[in-house]
Amino acid sequence: MSIIKQAQIAKEASLKLAVLPTKSKDKALAAIANALKNSASAILEANKKDVEMAKKSGLNEVLIKRLVIDRQKIREMVDEVKNVARLEDSVGKVLSQVELDNGLMLYQLTCPIGVIGAIFESRPDAVTQISALCLKSGNAVILKGGSEAKNSNKALVSIISKASESNGIPKGALQLIETREQVSQMLKLDDCISLIIPRGSSKFVKYVQEHTKIPVLGHSEGICHVYVDKDADIKKALDICFDAKCQYPAVCNAMETMLVHKGIAKKFLPLMIKKFRQAKVEMRGDENTRKIVRNIDKAAEKDWKTEYNDLVLSIKVVGDLNDAIEHINKYGSKHTDSIVTENKNNADTFMNLVDSASVMWNASTRFADGFRYGKGAEVGISTAKVHARGPVGLEGLVIYKYKLVGKGHIVKDYIGKNAKKFKHKVIKKLF
Amino acid sequence: MSIIKQAQIAKEASLKLAVLPTKSKDKALAAIANALKNSASAILEANKKDVEMAKKSGLNEVLIKRLVIDRQKIREMVDEVKNVARLEDSVGKVLSQVELDNGLMLYQLTCPIGVIGAIFESRPDAVTQISALCLKSGNAVILKGGSEAKNSNKALVSIISKASESNGIPKGALQLIETREQVSQMLKLDDCISLIIPRGSSKFVKYVQEHTKIPVLGHSEGICHVYVDKDADIKKALDICFDAKCQYPAVCNAMETMLVHKGIAKKFLPLMIKKFRQAKVEMRGDENTRKIVRNIDKAAEKDWKTEYNDLVLSIKVVGDLNDAIEHINKYGSKHTDSIVTENKNNADTFMNLVDSASVMWNASTRFADGFRYGKGAEVGISTAKVHARGPVGLEGLVIYKYKLVGKGHIVKDYIGKNAKKFKHKVIKKLF
Repeated sequence: MSIIKQAQIAKEASLKLAVLPTKSKDKALAAIANALKNSASAILEANKKDVEMAKKSGLNEVLIKRLVIDRQKIREMVDEVKNVARLEDSVGKVLSQVELDNGLMLYQLTCPIGVIGAIFESRPDAVTQISALCLKSGNAVILKGGSEAKNSNKALVSIISKASESNGIPKGALQLIETREQVSQMLKLDDCISLIIPRGSSKFVKYVQEHTKIPVLGHSEGICHVYVDKDADIKKALDICFDAKCQYPAVCNAMETMLVHKGIAKKFLPLMIKKFRQAKVEMRGDENTRKIVRNIDKAAEKDWKTEYNDLVLSIKVVGDLNDAIEHINKYGSKHTDSIVTENKNNADTFMNLVDSASVMWNASTRFADGFRYGKGAEVGISTAKVHARGPVGLEGLVIYKYKLVGKGHIVKDYIGKNAKKFKHKVIKKLF
Repeated sequence: MSIIKQAQIAKEASLKLAVLPTKSKDKALAAIANALKNSASAILEANKKDVEMAKKSGLNEVLIKRLVIDRQKIREMVDEVKNVARLEDSVGKVLSQVELDNGLMLYQLTCPIGVIGAIFESRPDAVTQISALCLKSGNAVILKGGSEAKNSNKALVSIISKASESNGIPKGALQLIETREQVSQMLKLDDCISLIIPRGSSKFVKYVQEHTKIPVLGHSEGICHVYVDKDADIKKALDICFDAKCQYPAVCNAMETMLVHKGIAKKFLPLMIKKFRQAKVEMRGDENTRKIVRNIDKAAEKDWKTEYNDLVLSIKVVGDLNDAIEHINKYGSKHTDSIVTENKNNADTFMNLVDSASVMWNASTRFADGFRYGKGAEVGISTAKVHARGPVGLEGLVIYKYKLVGKGHIVKDYIGKNAKKFKHKVIKKLF
């Protein structure tokens, strides 16, 4: 089938899916969870092909690890789908309500966006997560996974589609595309697709933004900072910086640059760097860092802009809080940044002025995640500044529509000399 | 000054403007209102130049009318700015609050978007409205108005900038650009500008979307429908359709196509068409309409897709409610559509299934407007399906950031065998 035809079918399905009651969607999600459980061997078999192919083609270890599905992974997928079923429906919520005049009532209600194009990297479990979140939020979705996971994705989509369609979900609400060429074609279908969610490198997200008129919710890189303030508690600073860098360095919410106030650097840096050396963290420091601790490589300008995704860290000693904020707003990726301090004023200034999706005080950047934020699941972490920002769960997959209910009201009555006045009585406020 | 430099200055200003307290912003708005009042003669003089030039170049009557500023218009501008000062601040509102664990609190707070690029048509009063709304919502803005209003815009921006900057608004928070070339350059500055709001034709909005990576909030055309159901009250239907078409035909929320259920067409159409003929509405009907009323031109396929913005109307007799919904979702512009009926089920079905920003029941499409919806003012009416939809006021000019406040919390404690459990106690829900 052509991608144009696929998108048209998805569009038609989305209009029906948008008005399905919560119960029907949850029933379908339960059926999907069941089907995944019962189709374990088919999934494992398909995945085996992908892994063999990947090994042959010399894909690196880390990527192969992300590609592999085992029985434990399937159990996790099943649980994730069940979790999404348990989440509160984000569709049909009244955001605001205003009585414009007697008998003329305005409702602002959440509704699905329509058709979402989701493009993601090699992890095949993204298929189940994104499908479940889109279904629950009433959106049709066109998925494009990594080509290394081709067989796994195909098997998963087939199982999910079958289970959902035989449980009342409109046919074609979930579609899979497989080639890059199909992605370029999809980016042109602004008539049918209302939002593109690309997950991947900053370069990839920029490519997508350059090649489409469709709104893009960028889930891009994370150049996250921890700033250790002059008034920091040293123990907290050591723990938070270590956690932010070492607990799981391959992810977007790990720390890439540590900023340290000059007034605490001599006390803090030797202790911190010792800890990092024990954990085999490769460090690159600015001049002042290298004056305090020997044998640290020199950080180049490009280090401040690099997402290492690895046990590598750049370190800079800053003159004061404002220098730290300026550095973050200049080099960061507006993802997640944390201050360690016992000074409430400094914490407030930092959290207000740092222009990032998540700003933190005395907590590890690693907390920035849909599950930890209490969303149950996430489609990703948005570094965009419109629609949805930071970890995006079900509430980021809806928009709203206005419903105005009258009794034959016309505008002419509210215009001119004897114009009726609006009441504008607020019954529920947006915020 | 180069547009790149302008955008950088706007970006720097936006970071400071974002944290200004409501009082300071309102004080500046009051000063702007005052300055506009006191500079009436300078504004009128600049506008006179534009109008003379426009007449010389043969600009059409309607556009010249929109271009003209008189003392009454200045009073209206002053009032609008004062109104915006009175509106509740949309910045710093707590959207949600979750206690993730003891001592670890997550806040989701509204904040400004950053720098907004606003491109609009010839009406110079858009300058005051957009500037006031951006200032109040803490956003810097780069304005590009119609070239016909060049002198008027320049005068207004100079007055507004001076008044606001001498009242604590960061220098450069309001910028004007004047040429199309500067617009194309602006569209490339995704490092500094976070949102583009283009107002104008569908073609223009598409042009903008095609030439930028920056998110675009499309304020595009309105192909609005009124559907007269089989169960309509004829009197209400006559009033609503007449109001929707004739009260102010040049605007985007006027009706362009009237759909009539076949079961009521014979009774309703002759009465309605008589009224429209008296008001000199030019009508184009489908075959069934033309069978019921003589001397109606034949509607072509392209009529269903046309925003006339004039006393022209296309009319179609439909088989049932579903046909009406299908027609609207196929040909409409997702702006505003209304059903006239006494049947609640039909109204609900219509309002749920029509995929438009505003759906109405027994009310004129002309109500779809920021002021009438109780927003005080609007930057425009969005036909986009992400971020902000329908009439967009202050609340559409903000996004949110997450603030996480801990006491040294690290993620490692929540991972593995003896992992602590999250509490996820919801203190305030998003919706």
